[in-house]
Amino acid sequence: MTSNDSGTIPDAEPLAAAADLGTALRELIEVSVTTTVAAAEVRGAAELVRQATERLAVARRSPAQLPALDDLTRGRRVFNPVTGVGSALAPPLVVHRDGDGVVAQVTLGVAYEGPPSFVHGGMSALLMDQLLGSAAAAAGLWGMTAHLELDYRGPLPLETALSLRAGVAESSGRKSVITGTIALADDPDRVLVEARGVFVMPRPEKVDAYFGSITDATGRHTPPSRPSDATAVDERS
Amino acid sequence: MTSNDSGTIPDAEPLAAAADLGTALRELIEVSVTTTVAAAEVRGAAELVRQATERLAVARRSPAQLPALDDLTRGRRVFNPVTGVGSALAPPLVVHRDGDGVVAQVTLGVAYEGPPSFVHGGMSALLMDQLLGSAAAAAGLWGMTAHLELDYRGPLPLETALSLRAGVAESSGRKSVITGTIALADDPDRVLVEARGVFVMPRPEKVDAYFGSITDATGRHTPPSRPSDATAVDERS
Repeated sequence: MTSNDSGTIPDAEPLAAAADLGTALRELIEVSVTTTVAAAEVRGAAELVRQATERLAVARRSPAQLPALDDLTRGRRVFNPVTGVGSALAPPLVVHRDGDGVVAQVTLGVAYEGPPSFVHGGMSALLMDQLLGSAAAAAGLWGMTAHLELDYRGPLPLETALSLRAGVAESSGRKSVITGTIALADDPDRVLVEARGVFVMPRPEKVDAYFGSITDATGRHTPPSRPSDATAVDERS
Repeated sequence: MTSNDSGTIPDAEPLAAAADLGTALRELIEVSVTTTVAAAEVRGAAELVRQATERLAVARRSPAQLPALDDLTRGRRVFNPVTGVGSALAPPLVVHRDGDGVVAQVTLGVAYEGPPSFVHGGMSALLMDQLLGSAAAAAGLWGMTAHLELDYRGPLPLETALSLRAGVAESSGRKSVITGTIALADDPDRVLVEARGVFVMPRPEKVDAYFGSITDATGRHTPPSRPSDATAVDERS
């Protein structure tokens, strides 16, 4: 997905198309929660959305089969609901390495609102869970969330650049403790949300139980087994 | 929004249209992450989505103005990203009173995936933050999340009915502690996610600072001040 190889990897255009649809959907979602047009226009938009769904629904993978666009060896999960360029639910968060940890900047629109004009508290939790996992992956660890806790020191305004950071606090055996913060991008030292997560790599028998039926797009069995399988870090940074 | 008054409330058709668009978008999002059609078809779907955006973008509210469809006196927040029928990000969670607490059932599609075939851990946090807030509201309390913690005892499968519960554990002054759980709907006693939240009602001066510029659709100043302003509980149950 780096710019200099996009002409050579075989799935460049499918990936670009998925990202294009993700972008278009994000714009539509934001407009759909702020529009003041008449109901008939809203119904007209819904009809166009249904036409789009019809075009895409003619061929679908099963949930046990990973998307053809995902590349676990490169940590690419195109439809991840926080970082995926192809996910309309995702802002998306673009995660970069920074020293021993990871950072991300994101601006959230009205679609992510909880209290009037502020980001939904649960959205901060969603973003931090993903970023803590990304920090684990960036440090060569892998795990599933066992415990997550957040302290909210102040509300996060919508439509304002936010700065997110995370890094490994401690790690031993199958268990890692990851911490992270959210602040305004232009006031990065005043922490508004503080997060701490405990990530645990499942024992092999659990991996089999959880992911025994997962295959890649070719039908090959593909359980998560590497740090990059759980979360993606943009290696361009 | 109860069926027997939908013919009499003036915004019945705008509300139905917003819910129709929300439903259509949810279906499109789910198909967009599972489709295996060619890139040209994905581009075609994106073009239809852009046409829908154009129709809706001709008139928009400002973020400081609440949607005309919201009714804070009835706890109706149509575009809430967890419970809003008009929000494409929301499953949506339909919350009902149950004894002293609240319950909800939801089935999450592939768009909500974290580890292959399981719900993203951060999505569980998003849902629980909302449900804990709904439990506070149902008990006549109001507050913003100050602390949220979750213990993950087992992964939540996609495309499987989940049962969520929450209730007030303790409350004194401006502070409430709310607890909640997620389990499979057909195995409700085996808790897979456990949540605990501390909600604090902001002091009046904080309410002014946070929400001083918020107005309703008519331009009238409307800061959150009642339990129902923060979260919606479906009173039909």
